[in-house]
Amino acid sequence: MSETTMQADGGYYTAENHGPFERHGLGALELEEGGVIPDCQLAYTTFGELSPAKDNAILMLTWYSGTHGILAQTYIGEGHALDPSRYFIVVVDQIGSGLSTSPHHGAGPAFPRVRIGDDVRAQQRFLRERFGIEELQLVLGGSMGGQQTYEWAVRFPDQVRRAAPLAATARVPDMNAIYVDALCDALTADPAFAGGDYGSSEAMAAGLARHARLIAILGYSTEFWAQECWRALEFESAGAFLEGFVIPYFAPMDPNDLLCQAWKWQHADVGRSAGGDLAAALGRIRAKTFVMPIDEDLFFPLEDCRREQAMVPGSELRVLNSISGHLALFGLEPEFVAQIDRNLGELLAS
Amino acid sequence: MSETTMQADGGYYTAENHGPFERHGLGALELEEGGVIPDCQLAYTTFGELSPAKDNAILMLTWYSGTHGILAQTYIGEGHALDPSRYFIVVVDQIGSGLSTSPHHGAGPAFPRVRIGDDVRAQQRFLRERFGIEELQLVLGGSMGGQQTYEWAVRFPDQVRRAAPLAATARVPDMNAIYVDALCDALTADPAFAGGDYGSSEAMAAGLARHARLIAILGYSTEFWAQECWRALEFESAGAFLEGFVIPYFAPMDPNDLLCQAWKWQHADVGRSAGGDLAAALGRIRAKTFVMPIDEDLFFPLEDCRREQAMVPGSELRVLNSISGHLALFGLEPEFVAQIDRNLGELLAS
Repeated sequence: MSETTMQADGGYYTAENHGPFERHGLGALELEEGGVIPDCQLAYTTFGELSPAKDNAILMLTWYSGTHGILAQTYIGEGHALDPSRYFIVVVDQIGSGLSTSPHHGAGPAFPRVRIGDDVRAQQRFLRERFGIEELQLVLGGSMGGQQTYEWAVRFPDQVRRAAPLAATARVPDMNAIYVDALCDALTADPAFAGGDYGSSEAMAAGLARHARLIAILGYSTEFWAQECWRALEFESAGAFLEGFVIPYFAPMDPNDLLCQAWKWQHADVGRSAGGDLAAALGRIRAKTFVMPIDEDLFFPLEDCRREQAMVPGSELRVLNSISGHLALFGLEPEFVAQIDRNLGELLAS
Repeated sequence: MSETTMQADGGYYTAENHGPFERHGLGALELEEGGVIPDCQLAYTTFGELSPAKDNAILMLTWYSGTHGILAQTYIGEGHALDPSRYFIVVVDQIGSGLSTSPHHGAGPAFPRVRIGDDVRAQQRFLRERFGIEELQLVLGGSMGGQQTYEWAVRFPDQVRRAAPLAATARVPDMNAIYVDALCDALTADPAFAGGDYGSSEAMAAGLARHARLIAILGYSTEFWAQECWRALEFESAGAFLEGFVIPYFAPMDPNDLLCQAWKWQHADVGRSAGGDLAAALGRIRAKTFVMPIDEDLFFPLEDCRREQAMVPGSELRVLNSISGHLALFGLEPEFVAQIDRNLGELLAS
């Protein structure tokens, strides 16, 4: 079922924009919300070689609007903890990312509702079918990638030796869920949205820009703005940074794809595996877990992360310091990435 | 020119909703942005008696969407530092508040742009004309009331003996200005807005609700949501709190009035009095100033307040602790109001 072709989509969701990738067809994926994806394709890319004993695999998962490209560029390579000379690193793009099966591939607004748990089950099947991987040395990811990391550690405790949820919680905080409502509303309230039949991202420019501005407001910390950290990107004003960087970043994306991801983000809750009991679900984790919040994060605040970390047996809280807030994950600050590398290095050595 | 009649507006902007008030007509008010308000009326209310020497006057100023009613209820009275048995306390509703001259009184979207400095100049004339007050023992206010407080202390350094800007900065932080853009956009992007000729607040229900949700997201702190502080108001969920409290609070307000206030908020900058030099402007202050930020405030963050405080000669930083964030100003936590009373008591005794 594996394919090694590039994605055929024109426009934004291409290997040219996101780096080379392959796709693996899983056939039908039954979804927790009751729908089905008839021919579910996961986009992925790998770094390094799988050992004959298949005991050096790491899985990294993507965040909202992000793909394997930014992760590879920022976190993977010689000199990083995620070193392809030692590990076989698999990055899987989430369903709805635009690279794995997504609304814009055809179903549009009729695309079924997908949960983090659907992604994780699909990823587990993929790793087994494609590579015969039954155990992961490390599962990690930032933001929605961290939500998927928690879901992996709770659902498959015997297959995850180590876990590193970065800038994420296992259950979405209320404030964050309300905020995601506003993000979705920015898209769906655009008169051009037309119930999801908007035709093109260009037609949705106003809604996508509104959505981008909201991402910027909470995505960065209060001090990012106060200290004008956007000057590092050579902008002259906060407004120019929004118009020249944040808005263009989202402009080519497909709104239905974003909405698919946003719904997953907003409904993330590993407690669903334990009848709604978050502590019971987190108590199942057997992975050595470093919970790694960002100190100034307004999406997944430090205190929320700290409370969950206390429920994960044997886990450690490793606070990442960054003036940027949540979007520090993009790696503009070398020292931020170095903190992650130091923590991951220690975790992988344990 | 003084009137003692109640406002004639039906609906929301009445003494029944906001507590009794009077109005004072200033005649024409020339505006800094070049327009004019032909018959500018300031709504106000007073507590206590002005001493024969006119040396016991305190001026308190209103925040975005708020009026004298919430201030009187929360901060003024026996047992508070703002004690009418000792002080003559004047609360002036800002231009655009719906009680003082505002877009909904007739001009609608043609209402001219008003700056914080216009309010402050109008207030100074009013105090002189109506009461013969030339010196204020204390000027204070929270949020936009704090912006006005800074403007008073910079423009009229000889008339302000003490100043207490609460949860406010003298120059609007970039992040906050971008956020206010989103608030305004929530109103103006509503298809019912029709360039400001929407007819009624009811017609603008969707935009007003969108605006209210955005206020809630940053108005409260991350821990307010995490600790479910809305339970103190007897709601069952964060969503019920939004639908039953935050959205209904804004629903009857006039969008053009809110937009008038929002523009002032967004463009607040005392540095304009000194050719754009914030430090030079703040250096003019002669009032004994207690800068009082709220530790978890996401509108006017602590660090922004701290940097400005360092520019105000002889000032002190008095940090207010509240889990609620910016909207702690509404006074739901008695201990928060007690902190303000202790600081104001000390300031007034100095």
